[in-house]
Amino acid sequence: MSHVNVAIIGASFMGRAHSNAWRKVDQFFDLKVKPVLKVACDVDAERITPFAQRWGWEEAATEWERVVERKDIDIIDICTPTFLHKEMVLAAAANGKKIFCEKPVGRNFEEAKEMYAAVKKAGVLNYLNHNYRRVPAVSLAKKMIAEGELGEIYHWRGAYLQDWISDPNFPLTWHLQKDKAGAGPQNDLNSHSVDLGRYLVGEISSVTAMLKTFIEERPLPGKNAGTFSAGSSSESAEMAKVTVEDAAFMVVEFENGALGSFDTSRFANGRKNYNTFEIYGSKGSISFNMERMNELEYLNMADPMGRQGFRTIQTTDPSHPYVAAWWPPGHIIGYEHTFVHAVKDFLDAIHNDTEVTPNLYDGMKVMQVLEAGNRSSATRQHVDVADVV
Amino acid sequence: MSHVNVAIIGASFMGRAHSNAWRKVDQFFDLKVKPVLKVACDVDAERITPFAQRWGWEEAATEWERVVERKDIDIIDICTPTFLHKEMVLAAAANGKKIFCEKPVGRNFEEAKEMYAAVKKAGVLNYLNHNYRRVPAVSLAKKMIAEGELGEIYHWRGAYLQDWISDPNFPLTWHLQKDKAGAGPQNDLNSHSVDLGRYLVGEISSVTAMLKTFIEERPLPGKNAGTFSAGSSSESAEMAKVTVEDAAFMVVEFENGALGSFDTSRFANGRKNYNTFEIYGSKGSISFNMERMNELEYLNMADPMGRQGFRTIQTTDPSHPYVAAWWPPGHIIGYEHTFVHAVKDFLDAIHNDTEVTPNLYDGMKVMQVLEAGNRSSATRQHVDVADVV
Amino acid sequence: MSHVNVAIIGASFMGRAHSNAWRKVDQFFDLKVKPVLKVACDVDAERITPFAQRWGWEEAATEWERVVERKDIDIIDICTPTFLHKEMVLAAAANGKKIFCEKPVGRNFEEAKEMYAAVKKAGVLNYLNHNYRRVPAVSLAKKMIAEGELGEIYHWRGAYLQDWISDPNFPLTWHLQKDKAGAGPQNDLNSHSVDLGRYLVGEISSVTAMLKTFIEERPLPGKNAGTFSAGSSSESAEMAKVTVEDAAFMVVEFENGALGSFDTSRFANGRKNYNTFEIYGSKGSISFNMERMNELEYLNMADPMGRQGFRTIQTTDPSHPYVAAWWPPGHIIGYEHTFVHAVKDFLDAIHNDTEVTPNLYDGMKVMQVLEAGNRSSATRQHVDVADVV
Amino acid sequence: MSHVNVAIIGASFMGRAHSNAWRKVDQFFDLKVKPVLKVACDVDAERITPFAQRWGWEEAATEWERVVERKDIDIIDICTPTFLHKEMVLAAAANGKKIFCEKPVGRNFEEAKEMYAAVKKAGVLNYLNHNYRRVPAVSLAKKMIAEGELGEIYHWRGAYLQDWISDPNFPLTWHLQKDKAGAGPQNDLNSHSVDLGRYLVGEISSVTAMLKTFIEERPLPGKNAGTFSAGSSSESAEMAKVTVEDAAFMVVEFENGALGSFDTSRFANGRKNYNTFEIYGSKGSISFNMERMNELEYLNMADPMGRQGFRTIQTTDPSHPYVAAWWPPGHIIGYEHTFVHAVKDFLDAIHNDTEVTPNLYDGMKVMQVLEAGNRSSATRQHVDVADVV
Repeated sequence: MSHVNVAIIGASFMGRAHSNAWRKVDQFFDLKVKPVLKVACDVDAERITPFAQRWGWEEAATEWERVVERKDIDIIDICTPTFLHKEMVLAAAANGKKIFCEKPVGRNFEEAKEMYAAVKKAGVLNYLNHNYRRVPAVSLAKKMIAEGELGEIYHWRGAYLQDWISDPNFPLTWHLQKDKAGAGPQNDLNSHSVDLGRYLVGEISSVTAMLKTFIEERPLPGKNAGTFSAGSSSESAEMAKVTVEDAAFMVVEFENGALGSFDTSRFANGRKNYNTFEIYGSKGSISFNMERMNELEYLNMADPMGRQGFRTIQTTDPSHPYVAAWWPPGHIIGYEHTFVHAVKDFLDAIHNDTEVTPNLYDGMKVMQVLEAGNRSSATRQHVDVADVV
Repeated sequence: MSHVNVAIIGASFMGRAHSNAWRKVDQFFDLKVKPVLKVACDVDAERITPFAQRWGWEEAATEWERVVERKDIDIIDICTPTFLHKEMVLAAAANGKKIFCEKPVGRNFEEAKEMYAAVKKAGVLNYLNHNYRRVPAVSLAKKMIAEGELGEIYHWRGAYLQDWISDPNFPLTWHLQKDKAGAGPQNDLNSHSVDLGRYLVGEISSVTAMLKTFIEERPLPGKNAGTFSAGSSSESAEMAKVTVEDAAFMVVEFENGALGSFDTSRFANGRKNYNTFEIYGSKGSISFNMERMNELEYLNMADPMGRQGFRTIQTTDPSHPYVAAWWPPGHIIGYEHTFVHAVKDFLDAIHNDTEVTPNLYDGMKVMQVLEAGNRSSATRQHVDVADVV
Repeated sequence: MSHVNVAIIGASFMGRAHSNAWRKVDQFFDLKVKPVLKVACDVDAERITPFAQRWGWEEAATEWERVVERKDIDIIDICTPTFLHKEMVLAAAANGKKIFCEKPVGRNFEEAKEMYAAVKKAGVLNYLNHNYRRVPAVSLAKKMIAEGELGEIYHWRGAYLQDWISDPNFPLTWHLQKDKAGAGPQNDLNSHSVDLGRYLVGEISSVTAMLKTFIEERPLPGKNAGTFSAGSSSESAEMAKVTVEDAAFMVVEFENGALGSFDTSRFANGRKNYNTFEIYGSKGSISFNMERMNELEYLNMADPMGRQGFRTIQTTDPSHPYVAAWWPPGHIIGYEHTFVHAVKDFLDAIHNDTEVTPNLYDGMKVMQVLEAGNRSSATRQHVDVADVV
Repeated sequence: MSHVNVAIIGASFMGRAHSNAWRKVDQFFDLKVKPVLKVACDVDAERITPFAQRWGWEEAATEWERVVERKDIDIIDICTPTFLHKEMVLAAAANGKKIFCEKPVGRNFEEAKEMYAAVKKAGVLNYLNHNYRRVPAVSLAKKMIAEGELGEIYHWRGAYLQDWISDPNFPLTWHLQKDKAGAGPQNDLNSHSVDLGRYLVGEISSVTAMLKTFIEERPLPGKNAGTFSAGSSSESAEMAKVTVEDAAFMVVEFENGALGSFDTSRFANGRKNYNTFEIYGSKGSISFNMERMNELEYLNMADPMGRQGFRTIQTTDPSHPYVAAWWPPGHIIGYEHTFVHAVKDFLDAIHNDTEVTPNLYDGMKVMQVLEAGNRSSATRQHVDVADVV
């Protein structure tokens, strides 16, 4: 049995989700390499001490530059806003650390290329947390496609819709500022969808897209505003310019010939975490909705005429990926479990000295597709992904 | 009480659906103008006599050119394959007949323009049967949007998916030949979706699209092959080239600023008549699926926090459009009823001397949008609808 | 080709549904015996003439006793309120007429026995219109069970829930008067469920039940009050006693050992025509909801582990019962089509000189089960159906 | 900040679920009283040491009788098979321990009475883990009913269906032995449903029921057989008699006049953890399915005519019970979270010196209702709950 020392950077929404995973993985999975929760780091000194205590991190720190240099740290887990990812990854790679990084990889394709080059050069294990790959239903979909159960794939229809900023008074949090987030739902939501599309169907060869911003100006954020949360209202009520898109719809062609679509928006009222896809193949079709993440809809063309129909597989069977570790059939798991699965596979990769995916290469490829979409919208042309270099 | 004499041309799938409507409308609706089922016409003499007898048409005929010239005919109902629409509409208009025409309007935008010009010049009442506007749930959606219940519209997400030709051995019926059908699912299915998008959200200003053909060659059709039906297999097994697309995915911008998508395919295994849309607005959202045509999903943003959710309105209440004519709440209607509603409104328009929509103008506008999509796919550019002239 | 002359009695909700079926069956099905719509009869002279005209009945009449004696009438179709069924059936049988009778058979088991004895003695073809047997999904369920697809049946869970009288101000229509209706939802709704339970699972051997009346007094009905309709408010606002149950919940054992339940109520707010059942067998399970009557949920235990789940069969395939007569796959039918199917099978039975089911025997057996339930509620004991004689 | 020392007894399915809750509660909720995971006890010495280590219990033990006597233990958490509950509760109470006990309370009403008397006499805090009360959707349902949102309740329709023993070769685990389990799904599943019925609607006054056993004999269990798991096959293949029911269907009257039903079975193929209920009230209705535990269906009669329908509330909003502690809207939780909620409320009750429900009194009342059902089935009579003493 070996141990690895983990340092986490960032103590907000993702810091909680990652901390929970590092703490919990050891109870549900049989690990060969066990994580030690060594340091939690956040620029906010008032926040990090209670955070570290609550989640069982041995130490609290405020300077991430010091943390990544520590000899006793094996893994750097990056949970900060997007604009900080690049320098952290570069520093971690330079120090030979294994990297567990929250998505999106960076603000744009340029950053992503630099990040990927750094980890490649350093030769360090790296993982990018497009966690939805590790929903059992999604892992099952991958298995079904890989084993030919769906045959040749004709279509991907992805949609990732939310509504948390549809109120014009929702403040201008960092997610709405291009210098911080790189983009709007393209980076936040569509990066997940494109990752799933690449994972399940294959590489994308060309893109055409339209992006839209519905609300041009918003109030500056008050205290505690953050992801999904408007916080208390700003006293000033000062307005500032929204610099990212509110929605992006893309049509794509995959290298294998499949025709696909990706619709993403933060203005789809009533949709909370509506991360969905439909895949149509010559032998069968599937559909998935993250809001019902313990289910996979499956149509088998081999069923006899008159008995065909989309069936709801409850992916809570011990035969389903990751599920045997949890509860009996019919006893569902939740959002946070995907992080535990990710940590589990990351630790296994350390033990087995293998790669783990998605990693920074995948993140870079996702960014390339999104950049193709952004250029398509700007130039009003179809864009070949290969032309985005 | 006045009467109008109807002549129908075409005795296949649509001929049946229209005949049923003309026969049935008088029992369920209180009409001021009643239809007389005068002549049924089809080029196939063996087919038309029993057809006329079965559906109660007074006469059977085989030469449509003669029928449209008859003085005693008021209404020409066109149910033939697409490539015949134009000359029939032109002849009917020239003879001053009222026109009830099955969709799509014609093979392409060029034909549609000519057809619209003809009816405009003749000043005849004309209706194009995009029948899905008259599903009670869709009419309700229109009413809700018109009365502001959904507020400003941000998104339209339309999909019309079928699977009846996904088998590579499905024969090359007229639907797969460009000279007969004009196009593939763009004309057959997406024309419906675009009609609904225009009806519910408004005019479309620009389009980007990709079209795909998955199966390049198919066997020539045997006897009785037709819409949804492979018929008996061809003896020759001779192959011929598919000249239309199998699928088309489009992203559009509406004139009011909404961002939308239209995905259509005949290769979506498991989808039979999956004509669906989602509309997201500032005050509420709706979604619809023709396979569950007696339901409308509705999210009301005015519901209190913690009590919001998409509700399933069963559109079987006497307060819903057209429904009072049928059965009590919870007793659903079917596909064919939309045709009865269309006939009812057409007869009312005669009585009231008003127009009825959608008409050939709408058909032309739909074709303009589809043509923009076709050009976008061919030129790999975004296309302004206004540039399609 | 032969013809039969039909007389219908009753021109309300059911009179419309039956008339539509008699008119329409000939267009969609290939009949050997064709119906002639000869006479429509209703006690209300002002109503019957326009009714006959609208639906194409050759004559209108007001005295049913005369109609059943006419030599030229072959079929008596009874669509009157329940309390009139018995004397009409007896008269029709005495005159050797074929009988097509709306459900429930009569007010109670006593009447049903008398009615069955009369038709048996007369040897006339008789049909009782538990129309839901002829929903394609239900016919498919029957076929699947008969052919062993579900294996041994363990459970039936039936529910028939509506809400049209849940408002305490809904008036005391005939449905709420024991001398007119015989009972409340036991006769109106549960008779359908018990018919389906017998049809699909088999005979019921014992029953235990509780009946409840929530609202003891209601206003007398005003003009136009009827099934599902409160009509205009009564001027008097005089109150009268409700003499039937508002709800009845039963547990039963079937002769084959299956354990079942039947829950019925007119106080289930939000349920309009929620006629549902679940059947669990050793090889598979199904469930059905009349509000989505074009679907059957099916679980096949032979599907491999990890791929099992309830699938939604859209029963719109030509392979499904009755469906080939209508529209292509995915194009749904409605409530009224079940009546067309019933008329079609009735006419076929005439041609083939066979029986048709359900008939008055089945109606009597249903009433026996309901009577067992009523007695169980009254005596607070389990009741063997065989003891109800 | 104070601490309490916990000892857990039982290291199987429930031991895991409880351990996870004790470990995790402190990260997600702000506790005034924190749990210390002191001792884990199981009769199986080989199992308990790794179990304790994995879950972070400070010590492992094999003799529960010693554990309950330890002065340093504040809370006894009982996770053993049912037949051991009584003696453990009695011993814990005699030693003045606070009790956190897995359901069902005991094997039967007799045991439950004795247990309740013991804790009452001892005056110790006691909780019975009908954990489904603490699903956010169920807690929300309770809140809605308590605040009058559903008005007067007319109906409860509960069903708890599983299929894990429907294979006749599933072995005779303790769940199928009356001396171990007390009963079949009545104790295992229906105890949950009856608890929810009492919680949401109120006390039950009378019951009528039928119980069935479909498979009379089963093979003796091999190694590792347990809840939901057949384990490896027994070598002997020796058969033994099933001494509990396989299914139980009950109809009940509530003290407030509502009419209800409870259907439970382990032979409902395709249902994994189908713990469902529908509640119909004068102002609204709700329905719930544990397999989609993050949703509550809600019909509001105050919605305007034509806009009514069951809406799917995603109970993932910070306004919903317990949810603010977890993730943003749309990010669902799983089965195990209900245990965390229970532990949280138990610890709060210690801090606030209040009771917590459900407790052993509630367990006793549930057993009284189930016993009424059992007697009804045996005597074939309706049974007043008050007569079960």
